Amino acid sequence: MDITETNTIFRHRLSVQTRFNDYDILGHLNNTVYLELADLGKTDYFTTAAPKLWNAGNVGMVVANVNADFHAPALPGEPLDVLTAVESIGNKSFILSQRIVCPAKNDQLKCSVRTIMVHIDVRSMHPAPVPECWISTLEDYESRRLRD
Amino acid sequence: MDITETNTIFRHRLSVQTRFNDYDILGHLNNTVYLELADLGKTDYFTTAAPKLWNAGNVGMVVANVNADFHAPALPGEPLDVLTAVESIGNKSFILSQRIVCPAKNDQLKCSVRTIMVHIDVRSMHPAPVPECWISTLEDYESRRLRD
Amino acid sequence: MDITETNTIFRHRLSVQTRFNDYDILGHLNNTVYLELADLGKTDYFTTAAPKLWNAGNVGMVVANVNADFHAPALPGEPLDVLTAVESIGNKSFILSQRIVCPAKNDQLKCSVRTIMVHIDVRSMHPAPVPECWISTLEDYESRRLRD
Amino acid sequence: MDITETNTIFRHRLSVQTRFNDYDILGHLNNTVYLELADLGKTDYFTTAAPKLWNAGNVGMVVANVNADFHAPALPGEPLDVLTAVESIGNKSFILSQRIVCPAKNDQLKCSVRTIMVHIDVRSMHPAPVPECWISTLEDYESRRLRD
Repeated sequence: MDITETNTIFRHRLSVQTRFNDYDILGHLNNTVYLELADLGKTDYFTTAAPKLWNAGNVGMVVANVNADFHAPALPGEPLDVLTAVESIGNKSFILSQRIVCPAKNDQLKCSVRTIMVHIDVRSMHPAPVPECWISTLEDYESRRLRD
Repeated sequence: MDITETNTIFRHRLSVQTRFNDYDILGHLNNTVYLELADLGKTDYFTTAAPKLWNAGNVGMVVANVNADFHAPALPGEPLDVLTAVESIGNKSFILSQRIVCPAKNDQLKCSVRTIMVHIDVRSMHPAPVPECWISTLEDYESRRLRD
Repeated sequence: MDITETNTIFRHRLSVQTRFNDYDILGHLNNTVYLELADLGKTDYFTTAAPKLWNAGNVGMVVANVNADFHAPALPGEPLDVLTAVESIGNKSFILSQRIVCPAKNDQLKCSVRTIMVHIDVRSMHPAPVPECWISTLEDYESRRLRD
Repeated sequence: MDITETNTIFRHRLSVQTRFNDYDILGHLNNTVYLELADLGKTDYFTTAAPKLWNAGNVGMVVANVNADFHAPALPGEPLDVLTAVESIGNKSFILSQRIVCPAKNDQLKCSVRTIMVHIDVRSMHPAPVPECWISTLEDYESRRLRD
């Protein structure tokens, strides 16, 4: 049940901005907002790690599953960063690992999110093997082997 | 500064559903949510008042201005209705008048919204005179003269 | 990875209202919105299944984990219902199972969500065993044994 | 109807971050999001212009009216800044003027927002005259006379 991999190395960090209405009546960042922040991290990750492939515009990736652990409430005024890494690449899918942390509190962990993204052939709109160019580009960025 | 027209008759009412995260840290429906609720009322209004014209799919209307008065905070558990009427029709624009009220409190007024919508020719994408069929259909629904 | 339990019986169904801005640039209900809709279903479930306990106001339950499978995109104009059931009750936690379906398409499955909620003692603010009254009330509503 | 004051000088500018789900099915930043961004600008404005008064925590200001002109759609990938100024101070209220612009397009104007905020005595919770310390602090920041 605990999806946090304590040994993941995160090479990508994005500072994110929260809004007044992101905090709910309990005074906490609403759980749904973590997924909006994780989306910001995801887009910036691929723009940074695979700019040519991502910007080619024919990227077919759909989110099949999101699994989020809520560790500590994020409070108004606390800065937040999103850490993102591709954890592994399967035949037709990627697993993305993310953490939302508070850099003002020694990266206190607020939320960890694991996302399964399926690669889609944009012509047939069906799941298709992850192209080799994606695998090699992301392995270069992460400096480690990613395929299962 | 008070945009509430006390003598407007509203023939259209839509019950709207609020969500846990619509309420902010002050325990009030966040001001931005009133505009989301007004959008719900607007769509249902045109679907009801002008179904053939609205569903034809070539509707060109853009929101040019929104003016909202916040009268009383909406609290969790209070049901809310959106009242909508076309107030008047100009040469190339409509003025929509809406109120968000609490039916459990004798229609206590929470927020009034006046929206200026500009009619756009969908071929040229420029403002264009409101077609006669729109004017007559909406005058029929409202049972009164609408053009300025 | 597939969290859908095909044999769960759902006794609770809530019709939910979506908003224009719930649909993203792809024309799909944004993934984060499913969690807002699941929240609506959760609150209505406990209000219906355990009204006395829920309304007592000293309910201490926090969401520890959310796991969502996205099966099919929800499109503008499609009505949506949220089905909710308590799947099981552990020592200090509940597992809630939910599905967001389209009743106009024979309950086509859009998204399934499994939520782990931890029971908190509201005095100490620490996790505490789920009280017997909660277990018996929810077992009555679900008409089956829930504790692990 | 056009609320844009061409001669307002804005001393405060905040870069704001938009999210994937801020853009609606038309591919435009949804109108309701401009108000969320304006809120970000407002908070940062008062934190910068009147830090001692704002952080004292007993600030009573409620939004009574929001009036927004939508000039041009904001598109994904366009950076956005919020410009904020107190335009004038009345007996019991402030008028805040804001613009959301695209710095990558020579500050192309996307949206202008005028907000009427009423000063509230936090003990009585009734509207009360704006304190002199607020007026002088904001006049110092804006380098001009603000009271009507």
